[in-house]
Amino acid sequence: MTDFSPNTTDRAATVSSAGERALIQRIRARSGTSPRAPWVTLGIGDDGSVMAVPRGEVLVSSVDALVEDVHFRLDWSTPHSVGRKAIAVSLSDLAAMGAAPRAVLVSLTLPAGFPLADFDALVDGLVEEAGRHGATLAGGNIATSPGGLAVHVTSLGSAHPRRILTRAGGRPGDELFVTGTIGAATAGLGALMQAGPAGTRAIADLAECLARYETPSPLIRCGQRVAGQRAASACMDLSDGLADAARQIAQASGMGACLDAAQLPVHPGARRWFEAAGLDPVAAALSGGEDYELLFAVPRRRRRGFFAAIARSGGISATRIGELTTAPALVLRQSDHNLELPAGYSHLG
Amino acid sequence: MTDFSPNTTDRAATVSSAGERALIQRIRARSGTSPRAPWVTLGIGDDGSVMAVPRGEVLVSSVDALVEDVHFRLDWSTPHSVGRKAIAVSLSDLAAMGAAPRAVLVSLTLPAGFPLADFDALVDGLVEEAGRHGATLAGGNIATSPGGLAVHVTSLGSAHPRRILTRAGGRPGDELFVTGTIGAATAGLGALMQAGPAGTRAIADLAECLARYETPSPLIRCGQRVAGQRAASACMDLSDGLADAARQIAQASGMGACLDAAQLPVHPGARRWFEAAGLDPVAAALSGGEDYELLFAVPRRRRRGFFAAIARSGGISATRIGELTTAPALVLRQSDHNLELPAGYSHLG
Repeated sequence: MTDFSPNTTDRAATVSSAGERALIQRIRARSGTSPRAPWVTLGIGDDGSVMAVPRGEVLVSSVDALVEDVHFRLDWSTPHSVGRKAIAVSLSDLAAMGAAPRAVLVSLTLPAGFPLADFDALVDGLVEEAGRHGATLAGGNIATSPGGLAVHVTSLGSAHPRRILTRAGGRPGDELFVTGTIGAATAGLGALMQAGPAGTRAIADLAECLARYETPSPLIRCGQRVAGQRAASACMDLSDGLADAARQIAQASGMGACLDAAQLPVHPGARRWFEAAGLDPVAAALSGGEDYELLFAVPRRRRRGFFAAIARSGGISATRIGELTTAPALVLRQSDHNLELPAGYSHLG
Repeated sequence: MTDFSPNTTDRAATVSSAGERALIQRIRARSGTSPRAPWVTLGIGDDGSVMAVPRGEVLVSSVDALVEDVHFRLDWSTPHSVGRKAIAVSLSDLAAMGAAPRAVLVSLTLPAGFPLADFDALVDGLVEEAGRHGATLAGGNIATSPGGLAVHVTSLGSAHPRRILTRAGGRPGDELFVTGTIGAATAGLGALMQAGPAGTRAIADLAECLARYETPSPLIRCGQRVAGQRAASACMDLSDGLADAARQIAQASGMGACLDAAQLPVHPGARRWFEAAGLDPVAAALSGGEDYELLFAVPRRRRRGFFAAIARSGGISATRIGELTTAPALVLRQSDHNLELPAGYSHLG
C-alpha cells in the first residue's frame, strides 16, 4: 500500500493517489518550519484564513498565475523554481504598490499523475519565496486537472492608505526611473527556446539571464521605501515589459511619455545575446516581459528623496530613462529621430 | 478587422484574438453597472486592489476553483452559470466563517478559442453573483491555456475577530445542526451524468436538484447571523458533503460525532432519484458533495439563540442531526445498529 504520510519518499506516489486531505497535510507540515507571522491568526486547514491588517493600514491584494506550457515548461524549470517564481511574480504587484507582503493564498491545479516528490518541491518553493518576503502561506485550494500544472497566487499585503503607489498619479514633467536592468529575462527565455536548458547552461554569459527568467525577485523593499518617502507619483512593475509599463502609467495618468533609447539600462549579457540573435537590443529589451523591475514616475522636487529611498533598498540601482509629457504620444527618442514606443509583451498574444 | 471594443457582438471573436487589455476593459465595462462598495478604494486596472477592512474587524479570505471537465462541463452548464457558481462556492467559505463578503479577485485561464460572447456571459455571472452578496469584483488575472477553462476565485471578507466561526471550537455534547436539505446537488449531477441535460430537464422532480448543482447559493446571511449571536461553537460548509463536514469538525475539535440517520434532511426529489437509481438515499446524501449548506455545532445552552439567528436568516431551516461526542469515533446511528460514517466526497479522487 502506498504511504501518503507527510514524510513518505515513495517515488511512485502521485498527487491523485494521495488525495486532497493528505496533500493539505503535507503543505502544513512543510510550511510549519517557517515562523507564522503574528498577523495571520488562522492559517491553513479551515474554511478560510484570518488576518489582522495593521491599524491605520489598508489591504492591498493581487492575483497572478503561472500556467504550464504558457508561462513555464517543466522540462526547462524545476517544480521548486516554478513555486518560487509563482510567488515572486504575484508579490511583485505588491512591490509596485509599495505594500508590505503579509500572506499568500495558493490555488493549484495539478495533473493527475503529478509525482508527489514534485508536489513537495513545488510547495517548498512557494513557502521559501513567501517567507523570504515576510509572507505566510495562509491557505489555498487544490484540484486535479486533465490539463497541466497551474499555480494561482493571491498576495495579501498592507500599506498606509496615503502611501500607496498607483499607476495614475503621474504629472507632466515627472521623470521616469527604472530599477536594475532590462531584457535579461527575455534573453534567458529566448536562449532556452533556441538551445534548451542543456545548450544554454554552457554559456556563462547567460547565467544571469537564465536566473532572472527562472527566479525573479520582487523588489518589495524598494517599493516600500519609495512609497514611504512619498517620492514617486506613480509606479508599476515590468511584468509585461518596460514599453508596456511606460504606456500604462502614461495612459492611467492621462498623458504621454518620452523615453530616451540611449539611457535604457539593457542588461549587458542580454545585449550580447540579442545582437548575436540579430535582434535590435533596445527594441527587444523594451518589449520583452518578465523583468519584474519597477518603473517610477518621480516629480522633480522629489528626486533627492527618491534617491535616498533607492539607496536604502539594498543594492538596487535606478536609471533615469525619460519623462511624462503633456502630449499624449508615446515616443522613443533615438540619436537622430523619434519612434513610436513598441507594444508590450502580452502573455495572451 | 475584428472589433474588440467592449460592446462588440462579433460572433467570430475569441479571447485570444482580443488580447488581455481588451478583456480587462470588457470586465471593467460589465462590472461598472454594479455599485462599487465604499470599502474598495482601488479596483480593477492597477497592479493591485486596495480595500479598507472595517475598524475592529479582521480580514477573512479563502480561495476556491472550478476547473472544466473536473467541476463542470460546458455542454451541461452555461458560461453564465459557471461564473455564478465559481463565486458562490468561494463565498460559501466566508459564510462558514460568519464573515461579510467585501471583494472577490478572479484568476481565469481561458482556452485560446474561447468565444468572446461566452467570456462576457462568464463575467456577467461572476459580477452578478458577487453583487448579490455585497462583494465587489476588485481585480484578477487572465491567462490563456492549452487546457480548458478554469475559474479561481479569492473571496475577501471581514468579521469581528471574536465572532469568527472555525471548525475547531466544538465541545462534547454540542448538538449538530444542518441547514436546508442534503443530496440535491449530488442527485442533480448524477442525473446529468446518466441522461445529459436534455434528458434530465424533462423530469420535473429534478428541477430543484439540477438548480442546486448548477447555481448553489452561499448562506452568507445565515453564517453571519449565527456568528453574530455567538450561537455556534464550530461551523463548516458542506462543499464535500455532510459526512466529510462532520468528520472535519469532530477531528478539528478533537472529538467524535454521532449522526442520527433518521433525522437527516434528505431532499425529497433527491431521495426519489437515489431510490430509482438503486442507491441508499442516506449514504448517497451523506457522502455526496456540493450541497453548500452549513453544518453547525451548537452548545445546548445556545440553542435558543441559534434558532433565533436561523429565524432571521431569510427562510432557512435547520435540522438537528446528531451531536459531538467524547469518544473519537464517527458513528451513523440507524434504527437498530450503528455504522461507521462513510467517507466524504473528494474532488481529487
